[in-house]
Amino acid sequence: MLKTLQEKLQKLSSNKAFEMSVIFVIIFSSLLIGVKTYDINPSYLLILEALDIAVTLFFLIEILLRFFATQNKKRFFHNAWNVFDTVIVTISLIPIDQSEYALLARLIRIFRVLRLVSAIPELRLLVNALIKALPSMGYVLLLMFILFYIYAAVGSFLFESINPVLWGDIAISMLTLFRVVTFEDWTDVMYETMTIHPWSWAYYLSFIFFNAFVFLNMMIGIVIDKMQQEHDSDDDGVVQRLERIEKKLDKLS
Amino acid sequence: MLKTLQEKLQKLSSNKAFEMSVIFVIIFSSLLIGVKTYDINPSYLLILEALDIAVTLFFLIEILLRFFATQNKKRFFHNAWNVFDTVIVTISLIPIDQSEYALLARLIRIFRVLRLVSAIPELRLLVNALIKALPSMGYVLLLMFILFYIYAAVGSFLFESINPVLWGDIAISMLTLFRVVTFEDWTDVMYETMTIHPWSWAYYLSFIFFNAFVFLNMMIGIVIDKMQQEHDSDDDGVVQRLERIEKKLDKLS
Amino acid sequence: MLKTLQEKLQKLSSNKAFEMSVIFVIIFSSLLIGVKTYDINPSYLLILEALDIAVTLFFLIEILLRFFATQNKKRFFHNAWNVFDTVIVTISLIPIDQSEYALLARLIRIFRVLRLVSAIPELRLLVNALIKALPSMGYVLLLMFILFYIYAAVGSFLFESINPVLWGDIAISMLTLFRVVTFEDWTDVMYETMTIHPWSWAYYLSFIFFNAFVFLNMMIGIVIDKMQQEHDSDDDGVVQRLERIEKKLDKLS
Amino acid sequence: MLKTLQEKLQKLSSNKAFEMSVIFVIIFSSLLIGVKTYDINPSYLLILEALDIAVTLFFLIEILLRFFATQNKKRFFHNAWNVFDTVIVTISLIPIDQSEYALLARLIRIFRVLRLVSAIPELRLLVNALIKALPSMGYVLLLMFILFYIYAAVGSFLFESINPVLWGDIAISMLTLFRVVTFEDWTDVMYETMTIHPWSWAYYLSFIFFNAFVFLNMMIGIVIDKMQQEHDSDDDGVVQRLERIEKKLDKLS
Repeated sequence: MLKTLQEKLQKLSSNKAFEMSVIFVIIFSSLLIGVKTYDINPSYLLILEALDIAVTLFFLIEILLRFFATQNKKRFFHNAWNVFDTVIVTISLIPIDQSEYALLARLIRIFRVLRLVSAIPELRLLVNALIKALPSMGYVLLLMFILFYIYAAVGSFLFESINPVLWGDIAISMLTLFRVVTFEDWTDVMYETMTIHPWSWAYYLSFIFFNAFVFLNMMIGIVIDKMQQEHDSDDDGVVQRLERIEKKLDKLS
Repeated sequence: MLKTLQEKLQKLSSNKAFEMSVIFVIIFSSLLIGVKTYDINPSYLLILEALDIAVTLFFLIEILLRFFATQNKKRFFHNAWNVFDTVIVTISLIPIDQSEYALLARLIRIFRVLRLVSAIPELRLLVNALIKALPSMGYVLLLMFILFYIYAAVGSFLFESINPVLWGDIAISMLTLFRVVTFEDWTDVMYETMTIHPWSWAYYLSFIFFNAFVFLNMMIGIVIDKMQQEHDSDDDGVVQRLERIEKKLDKLS
Repeated sequence: MLKTLQEKLQKLSSNKAFEMSVIFVIIFSSLLIGVKTYDINPSYLLILEALDIAVTLFFLIEILLRFFATQNKKRFFHNAWNVFDTVIVTISLIPIDQSEYALLARLIRIFRVLRLVSAIPELRLLVNALIKALPSMGYVLLLMFILFYIYAAVGSFLFESINPVLWGDIAISMLTLFRVVTFEDWTDVMYETMTIHPWSWAYYLSFIFFNAFVFLNMMIGIVIDKMQQEHDSDDDGVVQRLERIEKKLDKLS
Repeated sequence: MLKTLQEKLQKLSSNKAFEMSVIFVIIFSSLLIGVKTYDINPSYLLILEALDIAVTLFFLIEILLRFFATQNKKRFFHNAWNVFDTVIVTISLIPIDQSEYALLARLIRIFRVLRLVSAIPELRLLVNALIKALPSMGYVLLLMFILFYIYAAVGSFLFESINPVLWGDIAISMLTLFRVVTFEDWTDVMYETMTIHPWSWAYYLSFIFFNAFVFLNMMIGIVIDKMQQEHDSDDDGVVQRLERIEKKLDKLS
């Protein structure tokens, strides 16, 4: 009998209508979060509270359904997206009523919006692809960090006396350099230091060039890398056919 | 006799000189719209009015010509560009003289400029290609919207008390975040919140990085996707030839 | 005897040392132009004047040498770079001494710097490649112009009363929209119109999205187009070989 | 006996634990440099000084170890990374105590952070790849410099009287044009000159377009160039197989 229940649950959780209703509730709960950022008439607050509890319950039931529907309970948590859903649902179950943690409770509830990613297969695929692309960017980001660190140290030593707000220590200097890289009022920063060190434009221009150069090459590198991967799998088909043809020719002669 | 008229119309509407004169009238009507944005001597207004009516009539006649020139009347509206032209011409026929709708009438007339796209085949091809590329961007835009929504909710909860003009509710916060993503005076926004929450730079930097990362990968993904499509059609030729060679070899042995 | 002179000239003009000295004089004349932008001691002005005349004479002699060195005088002007050099040298020969045209004379002399492009073969190749890439961008730029025109007309009608400096007529509006596209203080423009038309953010955001989308697709399109061209020439080799193999197999059976 | 010592040193210097400890000390010395940018309690300064000497000694010993571990002493300096490490370590050995050179000593020590690049093989590979990509950008940068130079000369002649701070001489004008290219308050620069020369917007827009066009084509050119290189090496395999097949067929007939 337990078996048949599991089968029924499995049918339900893979039901198209069920999936759509889950997506609908996630969107609804996201809108609830958005509504709370507006100034709301206190009389409506109770309704919002009730809706919030309803959503929490729905999420709890949904995850339990999916959990009991899977035959191998261990494999359920092998799927990173299931772990992700469970963590988000579990956290929102913890009752945080004290006013001091109210903000924290609100912030945690926001991550429910992320459940949209786990509920829509196309978005799941997209995020998986993004995560896979991360490592190939790792060392480039490290190289950029080294570049930022060196320039921030130089900037802090040379320009601290000119403007301690922008160049006070190495951390603030790195933030200032990030501002320069985004071209956000970077000439104001430059003109200020050029009054004392007239050649400091070389500092900014070289930094901008180095960063643009490293970034550009990273981008190009990733494009070529990915293309090569797909191209190779294509070529394999042609090469295998050529090998077969060669063998057949060898047999003929 | 009706048949011969249709044939004559068909000849006329596919005539190079006729097509050029249509393009010329569209450009002329676009210039008319541009001229109206300048302060014009009232005595010239009547001339402009007259020219406007002339253009409207020309467009009406042109579309009727093209309609009667097509043999299968139903197929005329199967072409999206014909529907587009008809809608624009029909709307500009509606007489809107009351002063309250004068602005609306003006705005609608502006879309006549778009007829240039439908009149020049190369632009039509270009826009068709753009529309085809849209779906592959859909889920990435949805992912970005989720990212914006989450950060906007967090920003609204944390920073509303600091600057309600920028972080008042989730909609305004999303607009502020779009401003941050375009690097438009984003440091002003950041420095303001850093006076209360010194660690809020992490909020902005992580948002910028996530967006740049997702956007970059989308761009790269589309490049690779399109290239793969064209590459595959190329490869097909080679693979078919290889298959033929293999079959011939099999016959030989 | 004239023949031998021509041969000698030909040898001279293709001499490596001669080419290097031409490049040196071009760079020297470019520096002269740069020096003139500084406030110079009047006593040095005469020296600059003399050097200027010397450079002009050198350029004149060099172009005459190259002209007499070519056997077929007509073919000399078939090369666009030769025409370019001749025009620049000829113009700088026209004596413009009246103070009213002094500025014009100065400006024309600046184009001598461009002779560097015609003197260095690698730069000549690069510029030729750039000019070849222009047509494939033509229709995209036209499409963007239509987009700018329509939005500028709408902006001028809706926002002229708010800020005539930015939205006075269609030309000024297009300049303002270009500013918005470069993200240069675009929020100031937007916040101003949002005070009267609260929904005008949609106007700006849609414009930015349309432009980014068209521009992105143009870039991707050109990359794929160029790649396809080179790929095809590669593939041709493989396809020809495959055709030969098929024919040989047909002969065998 | 000397031989065995060398072998032992070789073993040590290629030891994983030794390499990790070197990386650890480099990171530690980088943090030391960062710490010095903060206002530190004078009582801690002595500790920092001591740690600095310890790090210097460690680097000296490490480089000597690696030097004596290599059999062929000459080949040690054939590796650019070894030369780089030796220079950085040697410079930091020079005692600069006089207060006037204290800043210089500090700045030189910052370059120790760069040793991280030489210590991590992946970063070394990345930087080698970046250096290889430089020449293909050389002529494009020269072309851009010519563009900047011409526009700066024109700008200096036309706009110097309007704002000598931005257009005083050709060097300042080039800096102003770089600012325009980064879209940093470029409309302020334009609006100012437009009050005197109403058509000067054409100067800025054409400059922005030329630069964007050259830059875009450079990027695309590099992508295609690199892809072609990798593609060719792939194709070679297929072409060689096809050649072998043709030869075999020739033998058969």
